[in-house]
This record gives sequence, C-alpha cells and structure tokens, in this order.
Amino acid sequence: MNIAFLGLGGMGSGMARNLIKHGHTVIAWNRSPGPAEAIQAQGAKIAATPAEAARGAEIAITMLADDEAVYSVTFGENGLADGLDKGAAHVSMSTISVALSERLTSAHAERGQGFVAATVFGRPDQAQAGKLFIAVAGTADAVERIRPALDAVGQRSFVIGDTPAQANLLKLTGNFLITCVIESLAEAFCLTTKGGIEMSKVHEFLTETLFAAPVYRTYGEMILAGRFSPTGFKMALGQKDNRLVQLAAEKLEVPLPFAGILRDRFLAALAHGDGELDWSAIAKRAAADAGVTHT
Amino acid sequence: MNIAFLGLGGMGSGMARNLIKHGHTVIAWNRSPGPAEAIQAQGAKIAATPAEAARGAEIAITMLADDEAVYSVTFGENGLADGLDKGAAHVSMSTISVALSERLTSAHAERGQGFVAATVFGRPDQAQAGKLFIAVAGTADAVERIRPALDAVGQRSFVIGDTPAQANLLKLTGNFLITCVIESLAEAFCLTTKGGIEMSKVHEFLTETLFAAPVYRTYGEMILAGRFSPTGFKMALGQKDNRLVQLAAEKLEVPLPFAGILRDRFLAALAHGDGELDWSAIAKRAAADAGVTHT
Amino acid sequence: MNIAFLGLGGMGSGMARNLIKHGHTVIAWNRSPGPAEAIQAQGAKIAATPAEAARGAEIAITMLADDEAVYSVTFGENGLADGLDKGAAHVSMSTISVALSERLTSAHAERGQGFVAATVFGRPDQAQAGKLFIAVAGTADAVERIRPALDAVGQRSFVIGDTPAQANLLKLTGNFLITCVIESLAEAFCLTTKGGIEMSKVHEFLTETLFAAPVYRTYGEMILAGRFSPTGFKMALGQKDNRLVQLAAEKLEVPLPFAGILRDRFLAALAHGDGELDWSAIAKRAAADAGVTHT
Amino acid sequence: MNIAFLGLGGMGSGMARNLIKHGHTVIAWNRSPGPAEAIQAQGAKIAATPAEAARGAEIAITMLADDEAVYSVTFGENGLADGLDKGAAHVSMSTISVALSERLTSAHAERGQGFVAATVFGRPDQAQAGKLFIAVAGTADAVERIRPALDAVGQRSFVIGDTPAQANLLKLTGNFLITCVIESLAEAFCLTTKGGIEMSKVHEFLTETLFAAPVYRTYGEMILAGRFSPTGFKMALGQKDNRLVQLAAEKLEVPLPFAGILRDRFLAALAHGDGELDWSAIAKRAAADAGVTHT
Repeated sequence: MNIAFLGLGGMGSGMARNLIKHGHTVIAWNRSPGPAEAIQAQGAKIAATPAEAARGAEIAITMLADDEAVYSVTFGENGLADGLDKGAAHVSMSTISVALSERLTSAHAERGQGFVAATVFGRPDQAQAGKLFIAVAGTADAVERIRPALDAVGQRSFVIGDTPAQANLLKLTGNFLITCVIESLAEAFCLTTKGGIEMSKVHEFLTETLFAAPVYRTYGEMILAGRFSPTGFKMALGQKDNRLVQLAAEKLEVPLPFAGILRDRFLAALAHGDGELDWSAIAKRAAADAGVTHT
Repeated sequence: MNIAFLGLGGMGSGMARNLIKHGHTVIAWNRSPGPAEAIQAQGAKIAATPAEAARGAEIAITMLADDEAVYSVTFGENGLADGLDKGAAHVSMSTISVALSERLTSAHAERGQGFVAATVFGRPDQAQAGKLFIAVAGTADAVERIRPALDAVGQRSFVIGDTPAQANLLKLTGNFLITCVIESLAEAFCLTTKGGIEMSKVHEFLTETLFAAPVYRTYGEMILAGRFSPTGFKMALGQKDNRLVQLAAEKLEVPLPFAGILRDRFLAALAHGDGELDWSAIAKRAAADAGVTHT
Repeated sequence: MNIAFLGLGGMGSGMARNLIKHGHTVIAWNRSPGPAEAIQAQGAKIAATPAEAARGAEIAITMLADDEAVYSVTFGENGLADGLDKGAAHVSMSTISVALSERLTSAHAERGQGFVAATVFGRPDQAQAGKLFIAVAGTADAVERIRPALDAVGQRSFVIGDTPAQANLLKLTGNFLITCVIESLAEAFCLTTKGGIEMSKVHEFLTETLFAAPVYRTYGEMILAGRFSPTGFKMALGQKDNRLVQLAAEKLEVPLPFAGILRDRFLAALAHGDGELDWSAIAKRAAADAGVTHT
Repeated sequence: MNIAFLGLGGMGSGMARNLIKHGHTVIAWNRSPGPAEAIQAQGAKIAATPAEAARGAEIAITMLADDEAVYSVTFGENGLADGLDKGAAHVSMSTISVALSERLTSAHAERGQGFVAATVFGRPDQAQAGKLFIAVAGTADAVERIRPALDAVGQRSFVIGDTPAQANLLKLTGNFLITCVIESLAEAFCLTTKGGIEMSKVHEFLTETLFAAPVYRTYGEMILAGRFSPTGFKMALGQKDNRLVQLAAEKLEVPLPFAGILRDRFLAALAHGDGELDWSAIAKRAAADAGVTHT
C-alpha cells in the first residue's frame, strides 16, 4: 500500500521500518530532519509537509507525542487533512484523548476521509521487532482496508469496536492498569522491606508464582534496582495519560479511586523533579512516604 | 515423616491427602468429624485432640481459618503446644497475622519446640493437585527438616527469610496484590463499559496481551460474568486479610494508599450483605458507584 | 462610578442592585432579557451587547457561570474587550479557572486595559444583602481604583496578592475546603447513625461545640434533613469547581488527596442523576456506600 | 458527692481540681506520685490503689491515656471494679475504643455497678478552666445521678444516647472531624503557597470569613508557623484515635475515605520520626509531597 507515516520517534521509526520491510511504499514526515534521513536510508521517501506526505496515500498513519502534535499535524497549515484524498483514511496510532479522537472522527467524515484509531501497546524494542499489540476501532470496512498495515507493525490486532475513540479509551485504560501494577508493587515492596524481607526474594516469589506476567517482572526489576533511567516511558507522559484517563472518566461519569491515588503520585514525582525519569519512579514517592531507602 | 495435620477444610483436606500419597504418616484432627472420617478412609489416623495428634509427631501442621482458630488449637486446652515434643516443629500454613506469628515463634521457642511459617498460595483445586506455591520462613535447619512435607503439598517452595513472621507478611502482601488486580480491573471495566466497548473484548485484549497472567484471567472472567459464587475466597475472609495487612503496615509504619481504597470497598460490600460472595464481588461496588449494570 | 455589569443571574442581580443603591451608574447586560428588565426597573441602563455596556465605563464587572461564558462575553463578537476604554478595568468576579484568569490578565494588558480578579464568597441572599466576602488580587493601584465598587457589594474585601489569578486560586481553594466539610460531615453522620446515635444529636453537639461555624451548620442541616433542593449551589457546578482546583493543582504540581476523594463523589453523584441537586448531595453517596438510609 | 478520680494527667488534674472547687469530696489515684501530691495540696485525699479510691465513692471517674490503662485500672489487681460499691457508677471520660466501652458496660452491669461514658472535648487549659464540652451516654437515671460532677468539669454536657459506647463513638468522630480540618488546611496551604499567595493572607481570609471557628484558627496558625511543639495533642495519640475510629467503622461496616487518607498521613509522620509532635504535624507530609518548604 501507499502509506504516509507521520512521526518518527522511538516508536514510529520502528513501525515505519516494518512497513517498508513488508513491501509497503512509505512516504514519511517528521518535524525534525534527523529521523527522516535515517528512514530514507531504509527506502522511504521523505515529504516536506504532512499534506505532501498524505497526498496520494491510501492511508496516513500518525504516531506522535500528544494531542497538540496530532492536532497541528492534522489540521495545521499544510496538515494531513488538507492533503489526504477522499476515501483514504487517517490511522491514528498515538496515545491521544478520547475527545480529540471524537473530533478527528467527525472532521475527517466531513471531508469524506476515513478515520481509524489503532492504538499500540509495547516499548520501542517491540516496535522495532514488529511485536506490538494493537487495539483497533473504526467502521468494519475501514478496519479491513488498513489491515495490511497493521499486520506489518503488530504481532496481533484486536478489533474492539466500531467507534474510533474506543481504541483510545482502551489504550488509556491499559496504561492505567500498568500504573496500578507499578503502584501496588511499590507499596508491597515498602511493606516487605520494612518487614525485613529482601526485596529480591519478594520479587522472585511474586513473579514466579501468581504474577508471572512481563509487566510485573519489568517494573518489579526497576523498583528493585532503584534504576529509573534510561527511560522506557517518561514520567511526564505517564502523568499526561493519567490526566487523559481521568478526563475520559469525568466525561463518562465513572469514579476511579485508584487513578486518583496515581494522580497524586505523579504530581508528587513532578514536584520532586522526576519528570524525566521512567514513570515507574512513582515508586520513589511510596518509598519516601514510608521512610524506606531502596538499595 | 510422622506428621500431625490440624484443620481439614477445603485446603487442608487436599494437603493432608498429598502428604499421605507421598508416604508420610499422617495423624489428623479436625473440629468437626466429617472431614476427619474422609481423610481416615484415605489412610490417616484420627486424633481426638490437637495435643494427641501432636504427640510423637516430627512436625505438626496447622491449616486453619484465622488467628482465633490457630491460637486456640495451639494454646487452648489439649492444644498442640501441650502435646508437641521438644525438638519437633509447628508448621503454620494458615493465613494469620504477623503479630500472632511472632507470638507463636517465641512461645514455641520457650518450650524448646520449633516454629516455621509456610504460607500457601492457591485455591482448593491446586491444594488437591499438590500444586500450591509456598513461602517459607524460619531458621535454616528448621526449614530443611520440614522440606519433605512441603515438597508433598506444593509445586515449589521459596525460602524468603529466617523469621517466621516474614512468610505471613508475604502472604498478606500477596493477597493485597491480588485485590489490587481485582479493583483495578473493576474500575477499568466500568470505564470501558460506559465508553461503549463490550466487556468481553476488553477482557480478551488485556489477558492476551500485557496482562496474560492467571490472576487477571480468573478475576476478569468473574467480573465479566457478574458471577461471584460459588466462592473461591470469601469476601469476609478477604476483608479480614485486608485488616491484617493494614495492621502489619501500621506496626511497620508504612502508608498503603491502595489498601485504604480496598478497605472501603470491603466495608461497603459487607454493608450491602455480600460477605458470603467471592471477594472479587468488590467489583459490584465499583459498578454501583459508576451506575453500571453489568450484564 | 460608571460601571458596566455583565451577568444578572442569582448572584449578579443582587450585586448590581447594591451598586445602584450606593449611587453608581450601572449599565447592565444579560444574555436573556428577563433579568435585564428587572434591573432596569431599579435604575440601570441596559446595553444590547457587552461591548456597548463597556464603552465609557470605568470598570466592567463580569459575574457569569463559567470559563466559556466569561471567555465569549470578553473576547466574542461585540465582547467587552472591544468596547472597554484604555485605562478602564475589567473586574472578573466569576469563579473561573486560574488559566483563564492568566489569559485575561495578559490579553487586557496588551490592550492597555486593566484587569482585577475579585472573587466572591456567599450565597444569593448574601449577594442581595451586600454581605459577600471578596478576595481581590491585582496591581495595587488597579485595586484601589475599583474599591468603591467592591465596598458596595461586599461586607469586606481582602487583598490577597498582586497577580489576579491568585484570587481565582483562593476562590477554588475555598470551595475545596467547603466540600471537605460536606464530605467529612457525611462520613461522620454515616458512622454515628450506624452506631445508633440520632443524627440531630450529633449535629447539635458538633455545631454547638468545636464546629460552631455557619458552614458546618448549613451543610449539617441539609444532610440531616436529607433535603438537597432547592439548590444553593448546584452539584454540576461543584463538580466543575473540583475540576478547576485539580487543574490548578496539576499545573502547580500539588497532590491533593482529599480533592481526589471528592472528585469521585461528584462523578458518582452525576452518574446517579443528581447533577441538579445541591452539591451537598454528595452525602447521598457516602450514605449509599455505608448502606445508610437517611431519615 | 464522694468522687474517686483516677488519672491525673494534663487533663485529669484540671478536672479533679474543678470537682474540689465545686465542693465535691475527691479521693484521687495516679500511677506516678507527683501529680497525686499536687492535687492533695488542693484538698483531695490520695488512695494507694484504684480499688481503695473507689471504695465508698458514689462515682469513680477514669481519665486515662488509652484502652490498656483503662482496662488495667478497672479490672487489674486492686482495680476499681473490685472496690466500687453496688449501685455506684464508673464514669469513663477517657478516649477509648467502642469495643472496650461495650465491655465495661456489661462487666459493670454484672457486678451491679453503673457505667456511663462521658467523653470530653477540649485541651488542658480548658480542662483547667472547667470549660470542657462533654458528650454523655448511659441510662437516663445513671446520667442524672452523675450530673453534678459533669457540671463541675464542663461548660456544657450533651446527652447523646442511652448506650455508653455512643459517647465514645462520638468522641472518636469528633477527633476524626478535627483531623479532616487539619488535612484540608494543609492541602489548601500547599496549593496557595505554590500559587504565590502568602500563607498568612490565606489564613486570615479563611478564618475571618467562612471558617471563623476556633478549630480552623488554632490549626491554621500552627501550620502557618510551622510550629508543631509544644504539643497540644500528640501525633502518636492522634494515630491511635484514627485507628480506633477505623476499628469502630469496620465493626459498623462504614467506609470512611477521608479517614483512610488520614491513616496514611499518620503512618508517614510516624515513619519520619514525628510521633512526639502535635498531630497537626501531618501537615508536614502534605508539604513534603508537594515539595513545599513552609517558612
């Protein structure tokens, strides 16, 4: 397929590469030139603007940092909405708000363009390896049409509804569940550490019995080691996603007590200057409260 | 080994049976006669009192409902502490408080008896199958001596420290982590359901991607089905364990914000008459708050 | 003084009347004509647009429902910013976000217009009686110039800083503290009621001893009576202010655990269709959780 | 009346003195001799044991630190229950658990002795001045009989029910409400301080408008000054009362979200070595979370 790819960050670069590998024609755009040159070397064409990238493409994928970026790349001057052909589809793979997804849905519809949200779970190395999990939502035939692209970047795609914003809500929900794991482990480690048990034994026990899932292993190891950089997913982005899940919950009138606890952890972490650490560094706040010095 | 086994409930019966299967000599005691007769039919001897069961045994295992039961079976009239030989060991496998475990440690030491805490993770069918996970704490040689018994009832034992109460603390911590999973899933399902996504799709997505652990699958299915009986682990016991983890945390001066949220869920569940349901029925409270009617 | 008054709701009508009583010349504007006619009968002139009202006024007071209303009345077509003379001042008395207040500060400064935030505490009957409390923030001479207007509507004004947004932050903080009183009373009443004490005796004891403040008396009586309408301050507005205080706290990186609890109470209240009741009806949620039926 | 008075701490000494002033015959007992000698100089007789003090008294008042002290003074060797005449009454004025109050009620009834709970609100200087507020619960005629003693120590007594434990529950509820005030002020000050408003202006505004109650003034000043000693009411006792209110709430199946937040504040304060400070020092934890340095 002819695919416009907008946003070549840590995740996007890997995804674009996999599209090329699977034989798709990729025309890429990135705000800063460095990553664009790298992907050009691998066979992509480079566009000067989002609109130029989108022109003639069957689908235009956005993989950007936040609502502001997606909004301006789509609707700004020389934005993809200006370039995208009628009948072609914008596939939003970024983690954005439910509200923006709803707005994109209607704005593209007005222009006769399709819109699908296909949110991804995984870290940059999984993006590189084409091993992402994808939650997709959109009209059945729009989803069908973009499937070859999804197959190139993910190990498995789940169609979870026909309203694009549902995939965004599920992405935010997934991130919420991950932070619940981090916080619960952080609290657990404080308790067992003050109870005199070696943290590595607690980690081993938990992750080889009931909690034998990568998410417990990954974050348990980070807390155990007290090592919160290099950053897999930045605290500041974690806080942003916490805000977005709370906004979605407010709109839907759903109390989320755990999300409220997490909100305060994120704000305390930012107040202590930890915005650039991995989001699992909220564990430092639990430790500070309990007077625990890890390692 | 000669093993006294005290407490033949849903868990204890399966464990005693596996001890017999592995060639140990079991002399059992149970408050009510029914389960004792059943285990007798499988080759155990039956004692009239805990003291009688303990007399001559190398180890005396307790697998009882709560602190009160363990206390009275151990120190009450004709209790196991009266019958147990010097040099023999009491192995407490029940979920009891850290405080009682500390008291048992010193009381047995005064009598020249050993004491090991070996707490178990798993449901009755895993007890039946000898597939429990065991967290053990006690002096190194006491742990070594009881190992054949542990091998008979568990698929794997983890020695996590040399102070028995540490195994009790870890058990309470494990249950705390499980309830965190239940609550986080309950909140997540409320959000996605009000967002229009089918709950079964959310469940499938989560448990086949990042949260591919039995604990998510088991509890996710119960919430999804809105089916909280038959009971795997009773709400009232869940609330008791929440109280015990909070007591341990208070003693160790460790704030546990998630445990505080869970405490209120348990109390609300009891206030609504759900004490006999599975503890995962705290999900009904999240749904009630959000005005979600499951199924 | 020549005063433009924009927004003649329950609060604004009383305030405008007091300005007239104190001898000020009031030219009023309101979206719907009814309240404008009423104030006209009391001596105000009526303007067709905010711009027209503001033209020639020394100060233009806005007393409107929310950010959206203040934004459009100020910057919309025929907005007050278009009409207001250089050197005249916009006095914002509405409960708005810190962010909008900052935006108004800089936007008016660019136009050579002054801007003062003067937020009010009190209910409509106190507005009527000129008994409001006012928190004022702005440059010293801007505050001095508008003082005659403040004196006409409030029983006392407190200058709390020289940055307008500070008065908005203090207003939101005050509302946060009031909701803390409501929630704490609601929890207290649930506890004592299930403990068998008559709620009226608890209310009497508290409000005649340590908590002899109007805020405890007013809200205690509403909870006691289970009467949440007529509405003093609407639940939906309470929830909006909770959102605004959380947004301000996020920007300033301040964890507010009590605000998090309140957020979930508000969302649960909205989910149960109580958006039109008085905000103290969050007490119904505490009662529902505890299985308490008031009255 | 002939009154036995047991417990001459900061509160008890003042209360005993007022009984003497009002013409009652006081026979006092205290664990350590110093305070007993002081009250003897003012006209009290001194007893060697609680039983000796209680013998011949019409009422025996206990004003002690906690459950353990009340239990051992009442039921220990030479305890007041042994000395108290049939028909005489034990008046418990200490802050104790609901459970102990229930136990005292039935134990005294079995001995043909009366029992009334009469809990007090106020600090030592108010005890000295006879200005305490008293919440009384017990059978109508028992309450009537002890009234002269209550009138001597308090400015006003409120009969809130006929079951003694209700007065204990109300005392715990009152302390819970006070800690809610402390926490809400602590959060409010963090927010306004980071928002650039002088804390003294916030304090003045709040306590001269909506929150013109002594409890806001007293604690607001302590937080403002960052001065948490000398201690009015010790953190460790505050934490104990938080535990007791949570235990009462657990028994009555009442969720108390604010109490859960406070529990974690108390534990964090203890973890940071602040157990000897005034309980309002939980405000230091809110400030630590927000990265605010007071004064």
